[in-house]
Amino acid sequence: MIEYAYLNGQILPLEDTNINATDLSILRGYGVFDFFRAIDSRPVFMEDHLDRFENSAHLIGIKVPASREDLRQGILEIIRLNQQPLLGIRLVCTGGYSIDGYTPSENANLIMVSKPFVMQPFELGLRLMTVFHQRDMPKIKSINYIKPISLLSEMNKYGADDVLYHSSGIISESSRSNIFIIKNGILITPKNGILLGITRKYILSFANEIMPVEIRNITLHEVYEADEVFVTASTKRIKPVIQIDKNQFEIGPYSRKLYDKMLDAEKTLG
Amino acid sequence: MIEYAYLNGQILPLEDTNINATDLSILRGYGVFDFFRAIDSRPVFMEDHLDRFENSAHLIGIKVPASREDLRQGILEIIRLNQQPLLGIRLVCTGGYSIDGYTPSENANLIMVSKPFVMQPFELGLRLMTVFHQRDMPKIKSINYIKPISLLSEMNKYGADDVLYHSSGIISESSRSNIFIIKNGILITPKNGILLGITRKYILSFANEIMPVEIRNITLHEVYEADEVFVTASTKRIKPVIQIDKNQFEIGPYSRKLYDKMLDAEKTLG
Repeated sequence: MIEYAYLNGQILPLEDTNINATDLSILRGYGVFDFFRAIDSRPVFMEDHLDRFENSAHLIGIKVPASREDLRQGILEIIRLNQQPLLGIRLVCTGGYSIDGYTPSENANLIMVSKPFVMQPFELGLRLMTVFHQRDMPKIKSINYIKPISLLSEMNKYGADDVLYHSSGIISESSRSNIFIIKNGILITPKNGILLGITRKYILSFANEIMPVEIRNITLHEVYEADEVFVTASTKRIKPVIQIDKNQFEIGPYSRKLYDKMLDAEKTLG
Repeated sequence: MIEYAYLNGQILPLEDTNINATDLSILRGYGVFDFFRAIDSRPVFMEDHLDRFENSAHLIGIKVPASREDLRQGILEIIRLNQQPLLGIRLVCTGGYSIDGYTPSENANLIMVSKPFVMQPFELGLRLMTVFHQRDMPKIKSINYIKPISLLSEMNKYGADDVLYHSSGIISESSRSNIFIIKNGILITPKNGILLGITRKYILSFANEIMPVEIRNITLHEVYEADEVFVTASTKRIKPVIQIDKNQFEIGPYSRKLYDKMLDAEKTLG
């Protein structure tokens, strides 16, 4: 089966979806993206992702070369052509072909690619490795993943699945997820230095029906002492964390309750 | 005249030098590069640049898909085909086509592009704007320039040509240059948190014939109080700084003396 992709308004076979070497993503890592799932051809929380995608581009100074309606049409066409029970869809908008290899072009390049997606079961807990780091411009979903990718072999060595960033003793986020901890029945999640995750947003919209919620700085020490820890992402919904460095955690009842509620939200709101 | 470029061992017209949208530079900003000049078809300090290029790739976990001799041959071919009195040559090595959109491929993509280059006169001083920032992994010449590019319109507004990064009161570097200050006849340049510039290396190799040299932390306050300030880069050699924020500087005799010496080094060593 041929995979199809989108480039600047055109639908093409993925293997022909090529970008010239003078694009600013290749020369200067300059671009933004977003990623979401389509379940049985229904995109999940698409408008939230498009809001964030357009906002990331705006904050970094890239003009998305498509209207909201063009974006929707492109996405639906990609979903239709690449039929899958579960499809991951990635939108990327780059600085375009730069004359001087530095200044963004007036004409950004807009790409959509997709891939069959496999959702890991809730029960398969995640192991994190703490890393001293604070992402620059964390609210912008930029394509810059040099830090966590360059740490992949170290993660592998320590049996970690992902990183947990901290700075000045305060945690922020994982490389592709937000983090929540539960202590004495209270749900707590970092306030600053994070990407504003869409799953995080929905959890915060309903969690206070289940338990008290605090959005504030969290120390590394508090994380180690937590009763339950989980991360959230559009690719993971809620994913229990079973280990951070040498500290182990149980998969707890609150995490499961919030997961079930998130599943409902995805069906009714997404 | 057709411009030529290099892609994975092949020479192609630049307009056909395309990378598939699944490359990790486009999806994750994952790549390293280097840049140098060729004067009358003679590459300047090429071996130094190739040392750094290979080292950047190694440190980030990318295997350059070409031997040192292959790199030299590719560069010389690009210079021959794109004949110019002054040519800027850019090597880029990316994480390649990733199966999962995250993990680097075993097969990196290696690109060489070039462009006629115009050297600004020494007398045209540079204006810098201080920015609170510390580059992550500064010794690696990665393609990540999101920070300074996203600041271009602010720089424009304040009449600045580039940024000067500082953190905890200590300066490090500009976005594409190393910095030196001169105070009471002593040449001082930052020690930590910087890219190890090749022009910087050559200046440090001969400067002590002219004046005492200190390689150490420099405070922002010291910079403001300096007698002379200049930046160095392969694209600039030595470039006097005439303004930092609201502080103005004269183009001084030491900067010129070092520039003349650098010009000699380029002719005899490069």
